[in-house]
Amino acid sequence: MQDKILEMGKKAREASHLMAMANSNRKREVLERMASALELEHDSIEAANRRDVEDAERAGLGKAKIDRLMINEKVLSEMIDGLKEVSMLPDPIGEVTRMWTRPNGLRVGKMRIPLGVIGIIYESRPNVTVDAAALCIKAGNAVILRGGSEAFHSNSRLAGILRESLKQAGLPEDAVQFVETTDRQAVLDLLGLEDYVDVMIPRGGEELIRFVAKNARMPVLKHYKGVCHVYVDSDVDLEMARSICLNAKAQRPATCNAMETLLVHETVAESFLPAMAEEFRRIGVELRGCERTRALVSGCEAATDEDWYAEYLDLILAVRIVPDMEEAIRHITKYGSQHTEAIVTANFERAHRFIREVQSSLVLVNASTRFNDGFQLGLGAEIGISTSRLHAFGPMGVEELTTTKFIALGDGQLRG
Amino acid sequence: MQDKILEMGKKAREASHLMAMANSNRKREVLERMASALELEHDSIEAANRRDVEDAERAGLGKAKIDRLMINEKVLSEMIDGLKEVSMLPDPIGEVTRMWTRPNGLRVGKMRIPLGVIGIIYESRPNVTVDAAALCIKAGNAVILRGGSEAFHSNSRLAGILRESLKQAGLPEDAVQFVETTDRQAVLDLLGLEDYVDVMIPRGGEELIRFVAKNARMPVLKHYKGVCHVYVDSDVDLEMARSICLNAKAQRPATCNAMETLLVHETVAESFLPAMAEEFRRIGVELRGCERTRALVSGCEAATDEDWYAEYLDLILAVRIVPDMEEAIRHITKYGSQHTEAIVTANFERAHRFIREVQSSLVLVNASTRFNDGFQLGLGAEIGISTSRLHAFGPMGVEELTTTKFIALGDGQLRG
Repeated sequence: MQDKILEMGKKAREASHLMAMANSNRKREVLERMASALELEHDSIEAANRRDVEDAERAGLGKAKIDRLMINEKVLSEMIDGLKEVSMLPDPIGEVTRMWTRPNGLRVGKMRIPLGVIGIIYESRPNVTVDAAALCIKAGNAVILRGGSEAFHSNSRLAGILRESLKQAGLPEDAVQFVETTDRQAVLDLLGLEDYVDVMIPRGGEELIRFVAKNARMPVLKHYKGVCHVYVDSDVDLEMARSICLNAKAQRPATCNAMETLLVHETVAESFLPAMAEEFRRIGVELRGCERTRALVSGCEAATDEDWYAEYLDLILAVRIVPDMEEAIRHITKYGSQHTEAIVTANFERAHRFIREVQSSLVLVNASTRFNDGFQLGLGAEIGISTSRLHAFGPMGVEELTTTKFIALGDGQLRG
Repeated sequence: MQDKILEMGKKAREASHLMAMANSNRKREVLERMASALELEHDSIEAANRRDVEDAERAGLGKAKIDRLMINEKVLSEMIDGLKEVSMLPDPIGEVTRMWTRPNGLRVGKMRIPLGVIGIIYESRPNVTVDAAALCIKAGNAVILRGGSEAFHSNSRLAGILRESLKQAGLPEDAVQFVETTDRQAVLDLLGLEDYVDVMIPRGGEELIRFVAKNARMPVLKHYKGVCHVYVDSDVDLEMARSICLNAKAQRPATCNAMETLLVHETVAESFLPAMAEEFRRIGVELRGCERTRALVSGCEAATDEDWYAEYLDLILAVRIVPDMEEAIRHITKYGSQHTEAIVTANFERAHRFIREVQSSLVLVNASTRFNDGFQLGLGAEIGISTSRLHAFGPMGVEELTTTKFIALGDGQLRG
């Protein structure tokens, strides 16, 4: 196995050199070809997926897991649309992001280039095979994919189709490689390829991410949990605060950018919290509050320290009344996960300070935390949300799969 | 020891929150204070340094090592000047690098913020204590420094002075911490602090860097060797090629950005190489060439595969004649270290293609490889040269010690 994985690494490195030089039209063409091929191969994809679903049913997997595995018409057309959208994004490669002139006349700039070889280790959803590969190709990289064992046949079929499209477009098929085994050892072997894989991106549950972070010899772009906060300031449009809190908590509570803790300034607590609590209760959100919250909201359970740290991913919300914004920021710094925080305020100075002082991957003023998403923020697509700060912090789009080199244009400059 | 290092990590994290909010004037003030303090403490620094030098002499260290250890008037005034220069650099924190508007009116941008806590593990030169701390402070970070044991007393004294200046300026002294032990175990403990140190930067020989890369649980910004190339194209001003090659090889041969391999287009080999070789020989550069080079240059030894991979850091140069630029780029891709490569050419298309296709941290046209340096490229200062692509590639200045978060300004936007 180790030899085979090493071989994949070498092939990926070779392919990455060619991909780095591929021009924009060629990359666009291959993504369009891939979209067409998924349509044409509809039946073979469905057949491969049926095998996975039947295996899952035999193994007694729960309905939620099987749902995630399933490639129905809707999932397939989303993959196809995703490819088309990525194909239309501007090509980031070759962009000169800045250029300046030195006193000796040397013109120095930074030019965007691909990262090189990207490894992606992911769990059940087979659409990741297509979505991730598309972004990697657009940014001129090669990618090695290792999917979850439950979706093995689906992933393998999808990767095969992508490889065929690369070949037809005159690009190296090894720019997309899929680890054709469910052997766990293969993951460890892949994580040891520091000379051939420039960055590893795990996508899945916390356990998978910790495993990858612990064992990878190359850098890892990781996404831990989202303990997101909304702070309702003293100077506030209560109706705006109400709709933002409702959207942040309940529009899709199982996502990493849903609100988990609500912080309310003490001067508006009485006018805001009882009505808000009533509305939450109506839609089935359970509240856990600090002492002062419980004095205002009947039937609210007491929040423990664990609640302040909790990522519920469910219809549960921790609520705390704070004396001022400083205390809200201290709470966020102590208990938060640097994912997404919002302030609702009409006050310019506090909006400005909240934006400046809260160090999370997305900080919002007067908008729902649910916007922390590559599509919503306008990146065109997303390969995950990084909650660590190096290289990328927040949603990672095509640009985050690139880096910059320095360039210098001279007419004979020497160092004195 | 482990407890003590853990304690340092926690204090650094606390300090980093305050540093992130420090305004530009405060950061400038503290750097100026540090410069003054180094002048005032001239005698105590000299005394501490004398202890290190005496220990080194007793231990029988070579002259070169002792020279590197020594803080004489010149070294001290360079540290002081460095602090003043960094203090005058623009503050990168808070800069909004881009901003755009979404169809729903949400204004989305990226704002520059500090990385957080930076660890620096370095070898003999005590100036790193001051230079590295200055850059980290300017970028709003906290830093944990671990210097080489030979410079222990010097480093400890310098760090003490920096901490005192922080305190006097009303900033947390723990923004600069120095590991006050020469115990090797402390390095391993430091490399395990992934929850408290956001990035580790090793500065020193290849052995140190590999040790850090292997054992660090947090991301590492590393600088491996520089196998730098100059390619002399067919369409070329021979006099410019001559002076660039001379400067790249011999201006300071022991540096990572010195030329190690010269590639020459076959059509100019005869007019260029014999005279160039003569000049190299005159200043003591030993040549090792391919067969075709040896046919043109008498007394030139045969280059082996090892020579093409070699970072000599000495007055030795490998020389190869190539049939075209494509072969030069293939050679660079195969044997190079992605550090610095230059083309000397009068041809626009080839200059353009070389810049685009060579994926090294600095690619130059018609200038010496010796310009790969933060000061020379105009970054104002430098904490090292990254040869890995994630986060930073090439010289790392203040900006490379920051990251960006997303910000979003709304007027009640909800996700539908």
